[in-house]
Amino acid sequence: MMRLMRVTFQGERGAFSEEAARRLLGDRIELVPSASFEEAFRRLRRRDVECGLLPIENTLAGSVHENYDLLLRYRLPIVAETRARIVHNLIAAPGVKFGQLRRVFSHPVALGQCQNFLRRNPRLPPVPFYDTAGSVKMIMEQRLADAAAIAAAAAAGIYGARILRRGIEDDKENYTRFFLLLPGKGPRPKLPRLGRPDKTSVVFATPNVPGSLFRSLAVFALRDINLTKIESRPLRGRPWEYFFYLDFLGSPEEPRCSNALRHLKELSEFLHVLGNYPRARE
Amino acid sequence: MMRLMRVTFQGERGAFSEEAARRLLGDRIELVPSASFEEAFRRLRRRDVECGLLPIENTLAGSVHENYDLLLRYRLPIVAETRARIVHNLIAAPGVKFGQLRRVFSHPVALGQCQNFLRRNPRLPPVPFYDTAGSVKMIMEQRLADAAAIAAAAAAGIYGARILRRGIEDDKENYTRFFLLLPGKGPRPKLPRLGRPDKTSVVFATPNVPGSLFRSLAVFALRDINLTKIESRPLRGRPWEYFFYLDFLGSPEEPRCSNALRHLKELSEFLHVLGNYPRARE
Repeated sequence: MMRLMRVTFQGERGAFSEEAARRLLGDRIELVPSASFEEAFRRLRRRDVECGLLPIENTLAGSVHENYDLLLRYRLPIVAETRARIVHNLIAAPGVKFGQLRRVFSHPVALGQCQNFLRRNPRLPPVPFYDTAGSVKMIMEQRLADAAAIAAAAAAGIYGARILRRGIEDDKENYTRFFLLLPGKGPRPKLPRLGRPDKTSVVFATPNVPGSLFRSLAVFALRDINLTKIESRPLRGRPWEYFFYLDFLGSPEEPRCSNALRHLKELSEFLHVLGNYPRARE
Repeated sequence: MMRLMRVTFQGERGAFSEEAARRLLGDRIELVPSASFEEAFRRLRRRDVECGLLPIENTLAGSVHENYDLLLRYRLPIVAETRARIVHNLIAAPGVKFGQLRRVFSHPVALGQCQNFLRRNPRLPPVPFYDTAGSVKMIMEQRLADAAAIAAAAAAGIYGARILRRGIEDDKENYTRFFLLLPGKGPRPKLPRLGRPDKTSVVFATPNVPGSLFRSLAVFALRDINLTKIESRPLRGRPWEYFFYLDFLGSPEEPRCSNALRHLKELSEFLHVLGNYPRARE
């Protein structure tokens, strides 16, 4: 039998990241939960797993800044991106009826994204918990008959729980974007065909002089290269200066993009290409 | 007797925000703690207080994204900024000796910023708590003789506790920038002289076409106006599009700045001036 590709993600089994990993990589994978984002990066660097799927931004909550910082610190290559719609479900133990519920556990971000549902059901006070899927695991382990959890549908399947209400999130335009990371330069695991790399992520720091960021963006604008995201993060040890993370459409294999990167390097104190990967299409 | 100006901030009495408020506004103020950032904004809008001091970025942790979102939602004017060095202190009840301590309570961010100290003292396991100053309040109320808290020096004074170790943070380049907000356009409270407004914060959204951000920054670069910060936040309801928050040096009273703002408006789908204030000098 073929050994399954090991994929790490942050959270308990049944997390949204796990759903996204299966959609991107198929079912022939072994999922390895990591307690924190940094643990996932460490597992990758030690090559305990072949790849990792980490969230980078959500259309409501914004960027996952910790992962931006970890991308720079660990320098693990991004080889794919994927986007998943976040559907929150009310989940309880089998046999538990909606009318029996007296509280709802979930991660504070998930509770915040289901405020309309919680307001319509004031007899279900929200209880913050460390993880969405972890809250399903807990109500099942403790056999709570008066409590539900808010989590991904996958969590119900994994822990043998039942979905009582589907899609209870306030805003349907709730998507998370994930990066697929590899441990480093070595041999690549066999990934499904994801298409030709046509998107690139970089991080750079400019000298602290007026107009620096403008000149950095000119590198792309002058070559008609589209930017899709810019993010700034503090530069440690240099208060009130920043790293910039940029995503652009194109690949360093195209001359205009390799020229743009050479030009950006000329203007930057620091430049690192985080990855070049096929853009998510859906 | 003159009524004191009421100033709200997030956290318990003795928070870093309280220290910053006293440094900016002096001692003739009454401090009104708010349980959350949004509660502080609501108090301001209801005019329960004359002003509020809210953190916007930290040189290690980055931007306080929730406050960026609230600035846009509540549209309360920024009238000053201030920067404070964050000094973490180990605080315990009077009479408690360092050797008696068996655990340390604080907010997870503060615990994370004192990792070297905690590593050197493995018999003091960190215990995450909801608030820095709140952890001092708790060890005093519960009269814990084996526990310390990590918090601002002001918290020791307020709750009658003692500082056992000063400046236990890993990185001395730890600063937080705060905005002073008013309830709205009405009559201004009597603020100390802070200097001439020479810095401006705006938020804008550009049409989703290539080169938009580059053209927006050109508005400033072409007029030699220095940008000091750019931050992007997701645009609700339009996945993968962003609001941009910009700080620049200059005031709309200068023609080059008012021209720049008119030019930016021409290029933007949306533009709002969040405030015009004297830059922090220290």
